[in-house]
Formats: sequence, C-alpha cells, structure tokens
Amino acid sequence: MKTEVDLSESYKLLHPRPVVLVCAKGKDGKVNVMSCSWITPVSDDPPLIAISLWKEGYTHKLIDETGEFTVNIPSSKLLEQVWLAGIKSGSKTDKIRLLKFNLTPSKMVEAPGIEECLGALECKVKNRMEVEEQILYIAEVKRALADKTYFKKDVWTDEAELLLHCAGKTFSIPKLIKHKSQIF
Amino acid sequence: MKTEVDLSESYKLLHPRPVVLVCAKGKDGKVNVMSCSWITPVSDDPPLIAISLWKEGYTHKLIDETGEFTVNIPSSKLLEQVWLAGIKSGSKTDKIRLLKFNLTPSKMVEAPGIEECLGALECKVKNRMEVEEQILYIAEVKRALADKTYFKKDVWTDEAELLLHCAGKTFSIPKLIKHKSQIF
Repeated sequence: MKTEVDLSESYKLLHPRPVVLVCAKGKDGKVNVMSCSWITPVSDDPPLIAISLWKEGYTHKLIDETGEFTVNIPSSKLLEQVWLAGIKSGSKTDKIRLLKFNLTPSKMVEAPGIEECLGALECKVKNRMEVEEQILYIAEVKRALADKTYFKKDVWTDEAELLLHCAGKTFSIPKLIKHKSQIF
Repeated sequence: MKTEVDLSESYKLLHPRPVVLVCAKGKDGKVNVMSCSWITPVSDDPPLIAISLWKEGYTHKLIDETGEFTVNIPSSKLLEQVWLAGIKSGSKTDKIRLLKFNLTPSKMVEAPGIEECLGALECKVKNRMEVEEQILYIAEVKRALADKTYFKKDVWTDEAELLLHCAGKTFSIPKLIKHKSQIF
C-alpha cells in the first residue's frame, strides 16, 4: 500500500537515474566539470536534451558564457570522481586537476570531453528557462560518441556498469533483464 | 576508445532510465495511460518535474485540457502492461481496461493513480514549451506516494525491481552497489 512521501523528497521517486558529468569551458579557457542526474532527452529528431542546473553554480555561469557544453557518461568505476565533481565548486577548485581527468577536444563545441568516460554528447544550448533556483537548458546534441565495447546495438551492456544515482551516497548499476513476453 | 554514434540514436546514451506511467483524465472523464522515460526532476523546492510528450499523442491532448496528470512508477513485474501502454494509442483503445489497471482517486488532481504501481506523483502543469515534435511540460508535484515496503529511507530497494528502459524491447533493473570509498 502506498503512503505519503514528504514533498521535498518526492524527486527521489524518479531515481535511480543515470549520472552524467557536464563539462563546460569559459571564455577565459577555464574548464569545469560537475555531476548531474537531472537530465533527459526531449526529442530524437533533431536530438535535444533538457538539463537542470543550479542557478548559483559555476557550470551554469560557464555555459551561459558560451552556450556550449559536453555531457559525459561515466562508468561506476569513476564513482569517487563523480562524487567529488558533485560536491566541490569549480569557482574554488580546479576539478579537472583534482580528479585527474584527461580532456579530449570536441569537434562541434569548444568544451572538451572527458577521456575516462564511456560516452559523450557535444551540445549547443537552444533555449533556457529559469525554474525556481535552477536553470533548465534545452540543448541540441551536435555529435555523439560511445565506446562500442560497452555500447552495442544502441544499448549499454552490463559490463559498462553505468552509474545510477538513487539518493545521497546511494548508487546503483543497471542489469539487463531477460523476458519471455509473447506480446513483444 | 569512443567512436561516432548516429545522432538519431544518440538519446540512447542517456538510457537506461526509469519508466513511468503517465495517467491523465479528460474533461469528458475519460482516463488514459501511457509509458514514458523522458522525464526528470528539475527542482526540489518546490518539487518540479519536466516531461516530454509527443505532440500528436492522446495523453498530451488530455493534459492540455486539464493541466493535470499523475506519474506512476511501475515495477518490472508490469513490463507487459508498460509495453502496451507505450505502443497503443488512447484515442483508439481504452488502455485502462485493456491493461486491467485499477485506478485510485488522487487528492490534489482529478487524474487518478494506478493501484498496481509502487509510487505516484500528483502533478499540475506550470509551464509548457513546444520542442520540435514534442511538448515539454514543467509540472509541480502536489502530492507524492510510495509503497514503503520498497521505498526505504527515500531509496527504492532492489526488491522494487524498478523498470529501466534501455532501447526498443530492452529493459534493465537497478542493483544497489556497495562501495568502500573513504571520501564519502
């Protein structure tokens, strides 16, 4: 039987969800990375995504400067780096250096990708909407990359051990299910 | 090493992601349900979500009539119903009857919840944005419910066997990971 959940915790009902590392490069050339799971595709043709970032965050500032960013998909093997990318502020810490990430140049945007991640989306902002303390960006995916060892037939394999965020310090990984449904 | 992914398939890099059943009730009292995984929280205070629905779909029509809907969180045990809710159109089929769902009245919205699901969010539309062939709704969560047997300390347990959509007919479930990180 279902019972009430405190409204301030209600977003956790929509977790676990994939964690990504958002990478942006300011006009001064400074690169920052942050972790996030409030992201969703919104259209497949053209490919558009929506991502919600905190209004006071440093990444939001860099994205507003250039209108560009990359979305990088980490394996759960990067859990410690993902955690630090989420709790440290890029305005005070050089997170790329701290997390020992190697950057790779993108083709369609100035913001680089993160070599250690399994996938990357190069994105350009098309629209933005202020939503309370957050900015919701609608961005077009201009280029997509994946490590095909782990992304087969357009599906991440279990071996990718993708990182899903549940709440706080709790994470999970996805396991493919086999089903014998006759209706498929 | 990462290689190019076709742009039309690039959204699958952001999967697997939780599947929800969206339930709406038209002005004429007709109730429809559809499955969807293009949804994300965008703010926690007040709790707001963003959800992308196809412009030609029946659910979108009902939501525009009333500005209300519920988001219901199914277990993977409902896989067949979820699949059918995604491929059948509510304009031609009474999906509630077809899928043998029991409806429960909501408190804050007219749209009912689905008894067979493990969680529910009662939502009111605050804003909408046309994005290519989709409508992106920003909605406020007015009430949240969960089966506390499976939602403990604000985290879905493995026993919930939540349904995550990978691509096409491929689905996965989340498994909590134990980590020994010192930095947490």
